[in-house]
Order: sequence, then C-alpha cells, then structure tokens
Amino acid sequence: MNQFVAEKKLYAKLAVKVGLNLQKGQPLIIMAPVETLDLVRYVTDEAYKAGASDVTVFYQDNELFMSRLRYADDVTTINQWVPAGIEKAFSEGASRLVILGDSPEIPEDLSDRRKAFAQANMATMTGLYSLIKKTASNWSLLAYATPKWAKLVFPDMNEDEAVSTLWSKIFSSVRLDAPDVVEAWLEHNASLAKSASYMNEQNFDALHFSSPHTELTVGLADGHIWKGGAKTTLTGISCNSNLPTEEIFTTPHNQKVNGFVTSTKPMMYQGKLIEGIRVRFKDGVAVEAFAEKNEDVLHELIKTDENACRLGEVALVPHSSPISKSGILFKNTLFDENASCHLAFGGSYDHCMQEGDDIVERGANKSIVHQDWMIGSADMDVFGIKDGKRTLIMHKGEWFY
Amino acid sequence: MNQFVAEKKLYAKLAVKVGLNLQKGQPLIIMAPVETLDLVRYVTDEAYKAGASDVTVFYQDNELFMSRLRYADDVTTINQWVPAGIEKAFSEGASRLVILGDSPEIPEDLSDRRKAFAQANMATMTGLYSLIKKTASNWSLLAYATPKWAKLVFPDMNEDEAVSTLWSKIFSSVRLDAPDVVEAWLEHNASLAKSASYMNEQNFDALHFSSPHTELTVGLADGHIWKGGAKTTLTGISCNSNLPTEEIFTTPHNQKVNGFVTSTKPMMYQGKLIEGIRVRFKDGVAVEAFAEKNEDVLHELIKTDENACRLGEVALVPHSSPISKSGILFKNTLFDENASCHLAFGGSYDHCMQEGDDIVERGANKSIVHQDWMIGSADMDVFGIKDGKRTLIMHKGEWFY
Repeated sequence: MNQFVAEKKLYAKLAVKVGLNLQKGQPLIIMAPVETLDLVRYVTDEAYKAGASDVTVFYQDNELFMSRLRYADDVTTINQWVPAGIEKAFSEGASRLVILGDSPEIPEDLSDRRKAFAQANMATMTGLYSLIKKTASNWSLLAYATPKWAKLVFPDMNEDEAVSTLWSKIFSSVRLDAPDVVEAWLEHNASLAKSASYMNEQNFDALHFSSPHTELTVGLADGHIWKGGAKTTLTGISCNSNLPTEEIFTTPHNQKVNGFVTSTKPMMYQGKLIEGIRVRFKDGVAVEAFAEKNEDVLHELIKTDENACRLGEVALVPHSSPISKSGILFKNTLFDENASCHLAFGGSYDHCMQEGDDIVERGANKSIVHQDWMIGSADMDVFGIKDGKRTLIMHKGEWFY
Repeated sequence: MNQFVAEKKLYAKLAVKVGLNLQKGQPLIIMAPVETLDLVRYVTDEAYKAGASDVTVFYQDNELFMSRLRYADDVTTINQWVPAGIEKAFSEGASRLVILGDSPEIPEDLSDRRKAFAQANMATMTGLYSLIKKTASNWSLLAYATPKWAKLVFPDMNEDEAVSTLWSKIFSSVRLDAPDVVEAWLEHNASLAKSASYMNEQNFDALHFSSPHTELTVGLADGHIWKGGAKTTLTGISCNSNLPTEEIFTTPHNQKVNGFVTSTKPMMYQGKLIEGIRVRFKDGVAVEAFAEKNEDVLHELIKTDENACRLGEVALVPHSSPISKSGILFKNTLFDENASCHLAFGGSYDHCMQEGDDIVERGANKSIVHQDWMIGSADMDVFGIKDGKRTLIMHKGEWFY
C-alpha cells in the first residue's frame, strides 16, 4: 500500500480535477472497497483542496456481503435509505466517485442466494442508475490495482511484482507520465471532441473496416450520434466518467452490417477468454461465428436473446493510444475497450441516437447484453461511406482525416 | 490482526447476544473505525447467524476527518442525511453497535477548526443521542485494542506485546474466560439487578465511605434511583450498552456531601493523568482540592462551571470485580469506571431520578462536565444511613448486605 505514493496522489488529483471536475462548494460521495483506503484518502485530500463542501465515504467490504450469503436467514431485506440518500444527493448536485475493486468469489452452493440478493439490491439502485445514465451530476470511475486483478493480468509474476506492474500500466494508460496530466487531459478531450465532431458532421451512412483479416461494412443507424471523451452533466459540468478513455463511439444499424471480421485481442466474457474470433455478418446478423478458444462461450453470448447476434456499438480508437501501445490485456472493460477499434454485440446506447420513438426502426439494437470485442490493428484502414463515396478516415490504424 | 481469532469471535458473539441482545429479524447498524475490520466481520457473522434482517456498516476513517481539518475551506457543512437515516432507523427499531477506536491527534493549529466541525457535527447527532439516552432501541459499545491505546496503557512494552496484553485484559474484563460467557453475563446482570434492587428498597438518605484515607458522607438525592447492568429499551429488549459493566450508580444530593476523600487510582482528564487527589467537601461543594500531580488540571475541571465542583454520580463496585483485580489503569472510562467505587464531578443523570420538574431542588446536579474518579479500595467500608441508622453494606470493599 505504501508503494507509488506520489503517483497515487497524482492519480487522485486527476480523478478530482478531470474525472469528476469537482466544483468548489460541491459535496462528494465516494464508494470504495476498504482495500483501497490509501487512494480514498488521497482523493479526499484533493477533493477538500478543490473546495469540496463535504466528502462522504462509504467503504465497502465484500466480506460482509459474503457473511450475509453464508449465514443470513433472509438475503432480500436490503437497507433502503443509504441508496435512496445517495440518489437524492446525486439528484441535488453531489458528485460521485466509485473506486473499483475485486468482485467476491461466490461458491457454487451460494449462487442462488447471490442472485436473490443481487435482485433485491438492484431494486434499491434503479433510481440512481437512471440518474447516472442521464449524467444528472458529475461522476467517475477509478481503477485500483488489487492483488487479485494483478495476478489475473500477470499470472507469471509474483504478487508484488504483478501489482507494481499493473499500477505502472494503469498510470501510463491515464497519461500520468505527461508533464502536466491535467493539461494533457484537456488536450486529449479536445482531440476526442474534434474526432467526434468530424464524424458527426460527415454523418456517414456506413464505415468500412479493411485489413488483411477483416473486410467489414458497418452501416450506421439513421440519426446516430458520435460520442467520446468528456461529457456534460445536466447541471453543465464537463466530466470524464471513464479514466482512461480513448474511444469515440456510435450506433451501428441493426440490419446493415455485412462482411467478415477477425478479432485482434481476446474477448473476456463471464470470466472466460475467447480467442481468435472470426465472424461473418449478413444484414446485421452474425451468421457464422468461430473462435479458436472457447467458441461455445461465444455461441452462448450471441444466443443470449434475439438481438445479441447484432451489433450495439462501433468505436474508433487510434492504434497509437497508450493502452494499445502497452500491449497488455487488462481483462477489464474500462481499459480494454480503449485498446483498439471495436464492436459490441448486443444493445446500443440511447444517448448515441437522436431521440424518437422509432430508434429501433432507424437501426438501434435492443438486447440485455453489451459485449465489446477488439478488431483494430496497425494494418487496418477505415473508410467512411456517404452516398456511395468513400473517404479514408483511419490509415494503418491512425486518424487520417 | 490475525491474533486472538477465537477470542475475538467469542467477543463478537458476546456483543450480539448480550451487549445488543439482537432480535431475530432486527436490522443492525455498526459504526466502526476501519482499523477494526476483523472484529466488524466477526460481529457481522454473529449478527446474521442471530437472524439480523440486514447489517449496515459505516466504516469510519480518522484520516478523512484530519484531511478535512487540514484542507477544507468549509468545515461546518456536514452531511445531514446519514445521521438522520441512522436516527430514523434507530427510532424504528434498528439496533446499533459502536466499536471504539483511537481519537485523532489534532495539532494545536487545527484546534479551532476541530471545534467548529465538532459543533456542526454535534447538531446533526442531537436527535440520535436523545434517542440513545432514552434507550429507544438496543445499542452497545465495544472496545478494540488499538496499538495507540495499548502503548498508552503499557508504555514499557513493545507495540505487539502491548496490544496482546491489552486484548487479554479486555477479554478477561468482559468475562470471556467464563466456561459459558453468555450464561456468565446472565448471572452477572442478575447480581447487579439484585444490588440495585436492594439499594432502591433501602432508599438510604446517605452513604458513608470509610477507609484509612477517606471519611466521606454522600447524601443521596430525594427520589434517587439506583441503576446498573442490563437495561430495557422502550421496545422491551434487555441490552448491555456497556461491556464491561460492574457498577450500580445513583444521584448524590448536590447540597449534602461532607467530609474528605482520597482517590485510589489516577483520574484521566483531557489526556492528562491527575494523581493522588484529596478533596474536602462541605455542603456538597469541593471546598479544598489537592493533587500530587496535575493539580492545576483538577482545579480547571472543578471550575468549568458553577456546579462542576459538586457531585453528579456515586457508584458502588466490589473490589473483587475483574477490572479491579486486573490492577490495570485502562485510561478509558468504559473500563476504569468499573474498577472501584467512584464519584463523578459534574452533571447527574436524569434517569437516576424519579421524574419531576423539581429534580434540582431534590438534589440533582446540572453541569456540562461529568468526570469519574475512583475512591474504592480493599480496606473500605460503606454504610447506608436511613433516619440516622447505619447499615454496613460493603465491608473491606465487598458487598455485605
């Protein structure tokens, strides 16, 4: 825990200044695993230095949850007023930071109790999640290199080495090595905003991904919107909910994806690595899907519901982004979705569409799953197609426009 | 932290079964320093095993408070809804356990900010404290042997040894070494109830404390009530808010204390040890007060307000009680007030008086301080006086009735 003190302090400052963009006089709520105590304290220091009116920390402890699953008679009576209080505070303009830790490992014989608890718990959180989806106030996520995660990413290292290595990869992926990290993020946000603007102005009908292993045309939904980087809350505060973030992303058309595509990194799904994915699409549907490893899990995924075999997201990420350069598979979507151009099987995001009752007719996709997989590479070109005319927008994995 | 696992689990069970007497289906709120994580987890296990409907833990972190004092512009805006939620839950029948940890060490230059924060914070807690005073629901305190406390009690030991020794003293002081600790506490509560009953039946006018160093007559207030051991909540649950507890106690008469008294243990006040106290009382007032060490602090104490020089509590504790036998000064009132017969300078407890608007006229004392000091010893006799007749109630420090 006493490692990387200076870096963690800077990471905390990044969270407050850029992730949250905490305003003077604003209250802050932090939800964090007890294992991340040191980072919580640094964030709290930075929040008060930035003028937070009050910082309320809810330390979370997986062991208490496990205790309940093991010993409680009743796993569905859930404290209502803590989530209701957080929801109310957030709706009234408090900022919210979540520090991510390990998920508990639930023994098989407790999985039914876990499901019952999760359902009861989710019911208390619906209001908050709906406010978060609307970006009612500024919020952000921050990763923490726990020993368990570190060993998953670097199984051949000893625990200390794995944790150190993961921290250093996290730090470089959020540009902590820039001379001025806050300045670097202002520039980075400006660059993402510029790309999203360009793509929105072009309003392409489709994208064409071309590499030695992929020839895929992804039609875009009518009224699709490109998003990326900082977003603005209903209260007018610009924040970066995801640190890192490298992607701009939008809504593919649920009927207009054709061609074949090969994954360039393994997909992590339900704790399993699916490697060497090749998929052929016809009129929006994955009609053939192969994988070199865990093909059955891939098939399960795309058969989850009727539209899990269609795409809900297409995202552009330059090959030179820090996460791509690191060459690491973080086995964590917050990081890996920023490693390269990617697609997602499953549901699309409403905020990536012009509003309307007809978004599904215009190409949005409804599914309970949303699973990213990486397709970008250093030898990939991407074209935008508008009225039959092709424009090269990425060349050899980099922006070309 | 991995020491004394079996003992801590038993201590947790004692807290749930005796301290709280947690009922099946009752929610539990735990407030505990992050440093006491292991004990919190054991208590949570026991609470769920006892049928708790839901356990909500608020981990507290002194460093976050210190961060606020150091860096915040504003130290008086306090989160309102967390204390309000706890108050509401408690008023609706939730049980509440507080695990005690270290107080933060506040540098001199931050003491004004601490005071401002404490006042603002106190305002949010008034409702809860008033419910606690009325024993609206079952609650309890539990001590935890932190390194800082252990070194204060055993300054000549190294930290590990001090912590181990303090834990073993805590465990024996709460009768954890009894063959069946829950049974032992049932018996102990019965014994305290019997002593309090006896004293209430006798309804003495005064007590006389007599030893080679003390000859003190303590008049009792009209309508005084002896209390001790388990108490019953407004909802009808018997609980032991203090673990350990060895005393029965009541209200002295604010005008009727006469004679001289010598302390038998140091008094801990505002972080200072006051040793070798000798006080002469006349008509309720400490008219002369000496101390061999820190006499100035003693003088400050009894001059805090008009009635700080009068008594607000008289308590009887047998010399054979576990804490007295340990011979340890815990430098913590939860323990030390159970070491011997004692008096308190300052305010009396309303619940130790028959109700009425005239409790001050009948002898109750109003003061903002309440400070215990020990006067009992193996060579002390205590007499009850009623209508001029003397009855020996304690002989050589033990119950005689």
